[in-house]
Amino acid sequence: MKAKKVKPEVPSGFRDYYPQDMIKRNKILHILQNVSERFGFDPIETPHVEKLDVLTGNDPDLQMYLFNATVARGGILNTERINSDMQENPWALRFDHTVPLARFIAANLNLPKPFKRYAYGSVFRGESPQAGRFREFKQFDIDIVGAKEVLADAEVVSFIYEVLTALEVKDFLIKINNRKVLNGLADVLGVTSNQGRVKEIFRLLDKLDKSPWEIIAQELAHKPDNYFDNNAPDLSVEQINLIEQFTHIQGDSLSVLNQAESLINKSVVGQKGIEELSQINSFLKKLKIPIDSWKFDLSVARGLGYYTGPVFETILLDKPNFGSIFSGGRYDDLVNRFVKDVNIPATGASIGFDRFYAAIDSTEKKKRETVTELMFTVLDSTLLDEIFQITTSFRRVGINTEIYFGDEKSLKGQIIRAAKKGIPFIAIYGPDEKNNNTVVVKDLTERKEYKMNLNQAYLEITSIVKPKNKNITGRIYE
Amino acid sequence: MKAKKVKPEVPSGFRDYYPQDMIKRNKILHILQNVSERFGFDPIETPHVEKLDVLTGNDPDLQMYLFNATVARGGILNTERINSDMQENPWALRFDHTVPLARFIAANLNLPKPFKRYAYGSVFRGESPQAGRFREFKQFDIDIVGAKEVLADAEVVSFIYEVLTALEVKDFLIKINNRKVLNGLADVLGVTSNQGRVKEIFRLLDKLDKSPWEIIAQELAHKPDNYFDNNAPDLSVEQINLIEQFTHIQGDSLSVLNQAESLINKSVVGQKGIEELSQINSFLKKLKIPIDSWKFDLSVARGLGYYTGPVFETILLDKPNFGSIFSGGRYDDLVNRFVKDVNIPATGASIGFDRFYAAIDSTEKKKRETVTELMFTVLDSTLLDEIFQITTSFRRVGINTEIYFGDEKSLKGQIIRAAKKGIPFIAIYGPDEKNNNTVVVKDLTERKEYKMNLNQAYLEITSIVKPKNKNITGRIYE
Repeated sequence: MKAKKVKPEVPSGFRDYYPQDMIKRNKILHILQNVSERFGFDPIETPHVEKLDVLTGNDPDLQMYLFNATVARGGILNTERINSDMQENPWALRFDHTVPLARFIAANLNLPKPFKRYAYGSVFRGESPQAGRFREFKQFDIDIVGAKEVLADAEVVSFIYEVLTALEVKDFLIKINNRKVLNGLADVLGVTSNQGRVKEIFRLLDKLDKSPWEIIAQELAHKPDNYFDNNAPDLSVEQINLIEQFTHIQGDSLSVLNQAESLINKSVVGQKGIEELSQINSFLKKLKIPIDSWKFDLSVARGLGYYTGPVFETILLDKPNFGSIFSGGRYDDLVNRFVKDVNIPATGASIGFDRFYAAIDSTEKKKRETVTELMFTVLDSTLLDEIFQITTSFRRVGINTEIYFGDEKSLKGQIIRAAKKGIPFIAIYGPDEKNNNTVVVKDLTERKEYKMNLNQAYLEITSIVKPKNKNITGRIYE
Repeated sequence: MKAKKVKPEVPSGFRDYYPQDMIKRNKILHILQNVSERFGFDPIETPHVEKLDVLTGNDPDLQMYLFNATVARGGILNTERINSDMQENPWALRFDHTVPLARFIAANLNLPKPFKRYAYGSVFRGESPQAGRFREFKQFDIDIVGAKEVLADAEVVSFIYEVLTALEVKDFLIKINNRKVLNGLADVLGVTSNQGRVKEIFRLLDKLDKSPWEIIAQELAHKPDNYFDNNAPDLSVEQINLIEQFTHIQGDSLSVLNQAESLINKSVVGQKGIEELSQINSFLKKLKIPIDSWKFDLSVARGLGYYTGPVFETILLDKPNFGSIFSGGRYDDLVNRFVKDVNIPATGASIGFDRFYAAIDSTEKKKRETVTELMFTVLDSTLLDEIFQITTSFRRVGINTEIYFGDEKSLKGQIIRAAKKGIPFIAIYGPDEKNNNTVVVKDLTERKEYKMNLNQAYLEITSIVKPKNKNITGRIYE
């Protein structure tokens, strides 16, 4: 009896990464790690699986879909195997790197502060799959924990700038705001006592980069649908006018701050927020971060509820539809989810790796499909032992070399296969070469041929192959 | 009302990786990637989540624990959100990289063959947690798909040798066997018609590196417990004697093969297996892989059911209790789980990254706890702007530099903090230095001091800092 064939499908919302993408992605990741280490960020990794209350903080309002974990045996769900603690407090796949970091910090209170870390890996969200939206995606995060000064926030902005410059990204704009300034606005609007309502107003402001002001203004006037609807914005014409004035402030950074201050100077927290932004302004100018690579944008609110101070978003000016590719902010209260009476301020940023890759990938002409630089053809299998020896000597001097193990027997067939995969060089060692103690290397793109003495080949091969592979994104590690 | 504090715990069987481990782990990973690319293996990544039937192949016998995925919203499990396809065919976390590779190959039949890939990442097993055994752990795999010749298996062994040599691992032994040889033994024992019984016998042979022969011999004689127990070994004294002879074969590689052949030469598949091992022997000798770094060991069976040809295990001779740290084999039928009428042979190996790290880590004296090479002290916050500027210039010439953002105000306090974290250099820029247009760098281990002209500092700093950090494992990317 033949077993039924299983469909080779990934679950909906998940995907494979192919070599032509991985080669480039590894290169980006390498640069991210490199710049992070230059800034003194240290690598850590947390598990993909966390306890659900760690992730949600018992917040019934959190609009996120998580994967709950139960245990199966031999393909059959076996609920008896579920740990008792898992029944009370299910396990779930992490949805970001920030909450697990706060958990990590709380579990290791003795770590010397400030603690600076970077992390890379998959996060998971149970979203309805749609074009370009996945349930598993990668994020690269940097965070500074235990530094309350706004200097740390300025360093985060400076990091974003250095990373994007190192990645040769042009035309990006870092948009900076401060939750305290928005809270100041809420103060002046007189809505601070109802945080649900404040949240809804900020959520609408966050949509201003996509929707015209008129639509948002209408929604800001929205009255409660019924008696139980406490969080409707329900703002008056005067309140909405104030918001319009506030979110439409234009000008250079100092002028933006001056105008904002004049609108919210009755709020203590708002003034504190303006002061922090003014310090960031001063740092960024001293650091000579180009004035056209960042600006204050008072409509940036950031979705996640845990931000408490400066917040950042980064857009690509020539690809605004990709949204923010590098975002973050200060979250001074998140560690307090886990510990009493200890205040551990923190700030950081996260690059949406897939979105960012998609954005820069869309301008790419030709992608490298393999890291292989040279393929050894095999025409006479009795010479395989010797071919294997030559290959080993090439590999040891750093040439990415593949021996052709497939079914094509002819030289032409093997060359077609190498060309199809984008391998730029092939090598030939047949009976003639054996007799002459030589090996032949062909440049497939230029149709050039090199005949080398066998004993010298491993010395000469580098100068033939490397110049052609110098600027190849696939060469991650030089 | 204050919210209840959440316990900052990871689920049992999961763990965090700290900088002192991650720095070294990244270095190992970098070497693994590097050697893989030298061999022409290309990177791919598959999702952490797969459909359950993909992973189990509907094998009710599979003794593995998987995590099933359901969807939760806002901390509350919301079964209505479960996709209908997820109810019929749950999702699960992958338990290795091999089965997802077979699924990937079946889903991309047009990929040019042979297809060589490497993959790194977490795999998950619902084991009962115990010392040194985790539910999430990392594996690094290389595989060659679409190459039926035993040359591909020899390349896998050669890869294992090159990787361990590149990692400067001493005293390892690659143990090689062939499932076909074991099937030959089963033929000669006359048990081939009952594959459940064969599996049980192989499982017992696999324990020979841990248990004495006498215990295994007893278990090989074990009779069925009841009428329904079809898979008891139930072997006669003669059969057990044959196994004893077979598993106790000693000598150099050719002699082992000759002795084995004399015992199983009545089996066609057994003879084929011996022939394949003989070819591997010839390749490894031609490649000058040192004779003491590998051997044929006829008791190696490998647990996983999907192997069909040569199998490999690698032990550290001075740390045998870590078991096999690098294992694999040929699995010619696995892609057939997904496709009809297509034969796609494959072979590969997997390094148990955590086990391997634990093994080499146990000989480590002092671990680097940070990638930071130099910490800028901050004694006068009015000079922060300038300190930030100097730091940026240091970072741009490749020095991993941290600015001290913490609460310690005194130089002594900040130096203690740098020393505690293992940062080898500090820099000072105070009012005196500002007046003299200098910056001071102190070597904390040698108590040496360097005074540099501010405008030249970014040129001089490399020659001061780099020699001290040259051999530090933390310097992943030179």
